[in-house]
Amino acid sequence: MFNIRTDLALEAKEIYENDQKSTEIPGVKIENKDLENCKVTIVEVIDEQGSKIMNKGIGKYVTLESNLMKFDDDESREEMITYLKDELVEILGEDKTKKTLVIGLGNWNITSDALGPKSVSKTLVTRHIFKNYNKDYDDDFTEVSALSPGVMGITGLETSETVKSIVDMIKPDRVIAIDALASRKMERVNSTIQISTAGISPGGGVGNKRKALNKDYLGVDVIAIGVPTVVDAATLTSDVLDLAIDNLMSQSNEGENFYNMLKQLKEDEKYHLIKESLDPYDKNLIVTPKDIDETIENLSIIISEGLNRSLHPGRITN
Amino acid sequence: MFNIRTDLALEAKEIYENDQKSTEIPGVKIENKDLENCKVTIVEVIDEQGSKIMNKGIGKYVTLESNLMKFDDDESREEMITYLKDELVEILGEDKTKKTLVIGLGNWNITSDALGPKSVSKTLVTRHIFKNYNKDYDDDFTEVSALSPGVMGITGLETSETVKSIVDMIKPDRVIAIDALASRKMERVNSTIQISTAGISPGGGVGNKRKALNKDYLGVDVIAIGVPTVVDAATLTSDVLDLAIDNLMSQSNEGENFYNMLKQLKEDEKYHLIKESLDPYDKNLIVTPKDIDETIENLSIIISEGLNRSLHPGRITN
Amino acid sequence: MFNIRTDLALEAKEIYENDQKSTEIPGVKIENKDLENCKVTIVEVIDEQGSKIMNKGIGKYVTLESNLMKFDDDESREEMITYLKDELVEILGEDKTKKTLVIGLGNWNITSDALGPKSVSKTLVTRHIFKNYNKDYDDDFTEVSALSPGVMGITGLETSETVKSIVDMIKPDRVIAIDALASRKMERVNSTIQISTAGISPGGGVGNKRKALNKDYLGVDVIAIGVPTVVDAATLTSDVLDLAIDNLMSQSNEGENFYNMLKQLKEDEKYHLIKESLDPYDKNLIVTPKDIDETIENLSIIISEGLNRSLHPGRITN
Amino acid sequence: MFNIRTDLALEAKEIYENDQKSTEIPGVKIENKDLENCKVTIVEVIDEQGSKIMNKGIGKYVTLESNLMKFDDDESREEMITYLKDELVEILGEDKTKKTLVIGLGNWNITSDALGPKSVSKTLVTRHIFKNYNKDYDDDFTEVSALSPGVMGITGLETSETVKSIVDMIKPDRVIAIDALASRKMERVNSTIQISTAGISPGGGVGNKRKALNKDYLGVDVIAIGVPTVVDAATLTSDVLDLAIDNLMSQSNEGENFYNMLKQLKEDEKYHLIKESLDPYDKNLIVTPKDIDETIENLSIIISEGLNRSLHPGRITN
Repeated sequence: MFNIRTDLALEAKEIYENDQKSTEIPGVKIENKDLENCKVTIVEVIDEQGSKIMNKGIGKYVTLESNLMKFDDDESREEMITYLKDELVEILGEDKTKKTLVIGLGNWNITSDALGPKSVSKTLVTRHIFKNYNKDYDDDFTEVSALSPGVMGITGLETSETVKSIVDMIKPDRVIAIDALASRKMERVNSTIQISTAGISPGGGVGNKRKALNKDYLGVDVIAIGVPTVVDAATLTSDVLDLAIDNLMSQSNEGENFYNMLKQLKEDEKYHLIKESLDPYDKNLIVTPKDIDETIENLSIIISEGLNRSLHPGRITN
Repeated sequence: MFNIRTDLALEAKEIYENDQKSTEIPGVKIENKDLENCKVTIVEVIDEQGSKIMNKGIGKYVTLESNLMKFDDDESREEMITYLKDELVEILGEDKTKKTLVIGLGNWNITSDALGPKSVSKTLVTRHIFKNYNKDYDDDFTEVSALSPGVMGITGLETSETVKSIVDMIKPDRVIAIDALASRKMERVNSTIQISTAGISPGGGVGNKRKALNKDYLGVDVIAIGVPTVVDAATLTSDVLDLAIDNLMSQSNEGENFYNMLKQLKEDEKYHLIKESLDPYDKNLIVTPKDIDETIENLSIIISEGLNRSLHPGRITN
Repeated sequence: MFNIRTDLALEAKEIYENDQKSTEIPGVKIENKDLENCKVTIVEVIDEQGSKIMNKGIGKYVTLESNLMKFDDDESREEMITYLKDELVEILGEDKTKKTLVIGLGNWNITSDALGPKSVSKTLVTRHIFKNYNKDYDDDFTEVSALSPGVMGITGLETSETVKSIVDMIKPDRVIAIDALASRKMERVNSTIQISTAGISPGGGVGNKRKALNKDYLGVDVIAIGVPTVVDAATLTSDVLDLAIDNLMSQSNEGENFYNMLKQLKEDEKYHLIKESLDPYDKNLIVTPKDIDETIENLSIIISEGLNRSLHPGRITN
Repeated sequence: MFNIRTDLALEAKEIYENDQKSTEIPGVKIENKDLENCKVTIVEVIDEQGSKIMNKGIGKYVTLESNLMKFDDDESREEMITYLKDELVEILGEDKTKKTLVIGLGNWNITSDALGPKSVSKTLVTRHIFKNYNKDYDDDFTEVSALSPGVMGITGLETSETVKSIVDMIKPDRVIAIDALASRKMERVNSTIQISTAGISPGGGVGNKRKALNKDYLGVDVIAIGVPTVVDAATLTSDVLDLAIDNLMSQSNEGENFYNMLKQLKEDEKYHLIKESLDPYDKNLIVTPKDIDETIENLSIIISEGLNRSLHPGRITN
C-alpha cells in the first residue's frame, strides 16, 4: 500500500514518480512554467483516484519555487511579490465584489509556525470601512477581514470551529488560509510557496493542528497559501543517510549488497524506519536554518504584499 | 443636565459627590473594605435611576486600589494577586461546573491598550483537555477557553460580533472580559482594578472600540476586569489647571473673581472646555508613565494569576 | 536670568524670539529652506554668547519638519528619506575613507525611548567585512559599526563611558548618535528631525540619561540625530493652559487683570510653575500619541535608511 | 590523532571513554554528585595533557543535568534555581566586595542563540547605585553590571574586543559570560547547564562567534555559563544513523562487513563524514525542539535567578 505524507503536492508527485518510475500519475495533471527566476508547477488532482494516490484533496496546487525568497533586499522581494501576485490573481480572479476572510493559521509563539499570524498582521483589512460607509463596491479595494485564531493550546478552542463561527457570522465569499508547512526536502524550506484551491486537508504536515478547512466544512471557497518552514528531523536524516552511504561506499566495496538493499527501500519505508529510530528523542524535533526569525519576517512580507496587491488592485503604487 | 464620562464607577461616584455635595446617590449603594494594603470599594448600581446618574449599567462594581501594583517584586505581586483572587471568587462563585470564556480586549500593538491580550496569553486554558478526555468536571480545574479578538483596525471585524459568534459556538456559562481603561485621575493609573458584573457598556473610556459586551447581547453573564492604564490629556490638563490656579492665586489676589468663576464650573464642563482647547492637537493623545511597558507586563501577571487561581482552585501550589 | 530648556535648537530660538520680541539672536545665525513637503531650518550657534542664550553647544542644528513622517506609506517614507539623506550628506560629507560608529541611545524597553536602538538595528554595518578582507576603502560602502549601549538602569554602566571605551578601541573618525528627544510642542512630536554637529549636551530632554557625547569627551566628531517622540506633561499643560484661558476670557471679562498677569509670565517661568503643580504626580509622566509603537518603527526606518544611503552611496538601488 | 569537538566537557569525556574504552583520562579528574532531581558532574582539566585530549582549557567544568528545566511550572523552576545557585556559590565564592560584569553572548535576533542576552536582561544590575551612593560594600548586594555586546553581523565589532574595552574601563574582578551552546546529544539540549572556570575557548560550538573570553585575554577571572540549545544537523544524523543501521541489520544479515566497518569508525570521523554529506545543504542548519521560544525564556529565568541569588545574597525572599 502506497501512502505519501507531505504537505506539498509537488513532493507527493515526486515521491510517486520516484517509486513508480513513471511520470504519469492517474487522475493527476501536471503543468510547468519556467519564469525568469521562479519555477511554477501546477499539480491538478482531478478525481478520487488521483486524490487517493496523492493523499491530497481534489483541486489545483500551484507551487512557486524560487531562491528570491532567500534574499533580504528590496529588489528580490519585489520580484518575488510580483510572481506570487500573478499566480494569486489567476486563482482568485478579479471580481471586485468578492468578500475575503484571511486566516493566519499556526502558533505565533513558535517562530517557525508564526508565518500565518505574521502575514495576517500585515494584510490590509477594509471590511470595517466598507461597513462604515455602507459600501458594497470600490474601484480600488475589495472587502477584506483577517483573523489569526491561534492554536488549541493557547485558546482551548478548535481552530476550525473558530473559523467556522466567524465565517457563519460575516459570510465572506471565500477564505484564504495562510500556514507554515513541513517539507520533505531541506532545499525547499523557505523557498517554496504552494497555493491550493483544495483547502487545508487534515493529516498533513508536522503537527496535527489542523482539522479540515475546506469548502465542505466552511461552505465557501477555501484557498490555502503555505510555505514549508521546517523539515522534520526524520526527513533530514533520511536524505543525509543516502548521501552518507554513497560517500561510505565510494571508500570501500565492502557491503555492496547491504547498500543495494538500502537503495531498494522505498523512500517512504525508509522514512518510517528512521522515524522509529528517532523515537527515543523528543517527537517535536524540527530542523531549521539558524536565521529562521528573519526568514519568517521576510516571507510574511512577500505573502501579505502579494495578497494586498491581488485583493486591492488600486493600492499598487508603482 | 448631568453626564459623567469615566470608565470607573468609583470616579463617577466621586464626581457626583463633588458636584452635588452629597454622599447619597439615589439608586446606588456604596460599601467599603479597608484591607491591609488595599482599599476595596463596592459600588452597586441598583436601579434605572442610579444607572442614569452614574452613566453605568445596573450591577456591581468592585474597585481595588493599591500601590502594590506599582512594585515589581514577587512579594508585592503575590499579595496583590491574593486580594484580587478573593474578590474574584466572591463574584465568580465556586461552582466547578461553570464554563468560562476569557476575552482579552484591546490592541496588542499599542502598549497601553495591550493589557487584555497580555493577560489572556497568560491564562491557563483547559477546554481542549476537557474535550479530549470527554470530561465535564474536575476537582482542581474548571473548563476555560480564551481569545483576544483584536480591534477593528486590525481585523476589519466588530469585536463584539466576533465574541458573540464564539459564544454562540462554544456556549460558555460566562464571559470574563479584560480591558485597559481610562481614568480621570493620574494617581489611579496602574494602581486600580475594577471588577464589574455589568459587562462593558458602550461609550466608556478613551476610544470607542467597544460595543456592548453584556448579558443582553451575549446571552450569558459577563464579568469585566479593567485597569486604567492612561488618562487622556484633557483630564490631566484639567486636574493640573486647578492646582496651577491655586498656586497662582496664592501669589496674587488679583483675579479673584475669575478664579471663583473657574471654581464654579462643574468638573465636567471644565473637562469639555479643555477638550476643546486641545482640539488643535492630535485627538489620540494619552498620558502615561514612562515605564508603561513594564507596568503592563506586571499587571497582566497579577490579573492572569488572580484569574487562574479563582478558576482553577486545585492549581495553587503554595 | 533667561534659561531655555528644550532639546531642539529650533524651539530655543522660538522661545527667545517670543520672550525678547526679536528675531535677532546674538551669536546665532538662522537660515531657512522651504522644500516641497519639508521645512528645513538651520540654526548655527557661532560663539559663547549664542551658546549661553540658547543653552546649546556651539555648532550647527539642522531641523527638518515634515508631516511626511506621520504617514505609513512607501511613497511618503521614500520622500522623507531623500530629504534626510540630502541633509546628512551635507553634514557628513562624501569622503569614503571615513570610519563611522553609529550609537543608538535610549532604553529599548520603553517604546518612546527606543528610537535609537531601533534605528541602529536597521543600520548596515560593514566594519567586520572591511577587517575580514583587509580593506581600507570601497567604492560603494564606507566602514560602519553600530552599537546600542543601553541605559544605566539596564547595564549599571554610564552610557557615555561605554561609548568612550568603544571609541578608544576601534578609533572611528566620527560618532553618529541617534536619540529620542522631548519637544515643547505637541505638533512637533514625531514630525521633526534634528541633526546637530554639537554632539549631545547634558541636561537636555526629559530624563537625564545622557552625559556629554561630544568631541571634547570622545575625541572625534559627534553628529547627533534626534526626533522628539514625547512632550512632558508640564509642557502640554502649559500650552493648553494658554488656550484654555483664552477660551475662558472670551466668555467673560471678569479676571482681566489675572489674565494679563498670566500673559506676562515668561514662558519658562510658567513651565516651572506648572511643573511644581504636577509634583504630586509621578514625575515620569509623558504625553504621546496612542499609536506610538508604529510611529517609532516608521521613524526608525526613515533614519536608518537616510543613514544607510549617505554612508553607503553604492547601495542605493533606485 | 584524536580531536574532540563539543562545547561540553562532559561530552568530551564521554567520547574519550567510548573511543578509548577507558574511564581514566590522563590529566583529568572526574567527580559526581547525585542530587535528588539533578545529576552534577565535575570535570576538572588539570594540566596541558588533559587540555589537549579534551580540547578544553585548564579549569573546572561543572555540569548540571536535570529534566526540571523542561517543565514550565514554578516548583520545578524554583528547585532548579536552587541547584544552580548552590553550584554558582561554590565557584563564585561569597566575597561581597567582588565586582562582577555579566556578559550575554549570542545574537538576540535568533531564538536559539538568545539565551545570553535574555538572561542578562533579567540580571539585577547595581553598579550605578554603588557609584551613586559612593559605596564599595553592601551586606545584601554586590556590585554588578551587565551587557549584551551583540554579534559581529549586528555591530561590525568583534565581541571579544567589545568586552575587553568595557573590562578595561570598569575593571571588574570577574566576568561571567552566558552563552547558548551546541550539544552532541539531543537529549542534553535544554536540560544541561555547564559552569566553567576556564572561560570560553575559541573553536567550540556551532558557529564561530566567539574569540577567547578568558583570563589570558581579559586579565580577570572568567566564569562561563552555558546551556546547549541546539544540536547541529550532522550530530543528529550521526546519532540516528547508528540507530537506523542497527534496525536495518536486525532485519537482514547482508552487509555485515559494511556494518562492522561503520562500527569501527571513530565517532569523530563519522561526524566529519556526515558533515561532508550535509555540504549541499545550508551549513547553518540546526535541530531544535519546536517550542524553543518558550524554552529559552524559561532557561533565562533559571540562569538569571540563579545568578541574582548568588550575587545578591540579601535579595532572596523565601
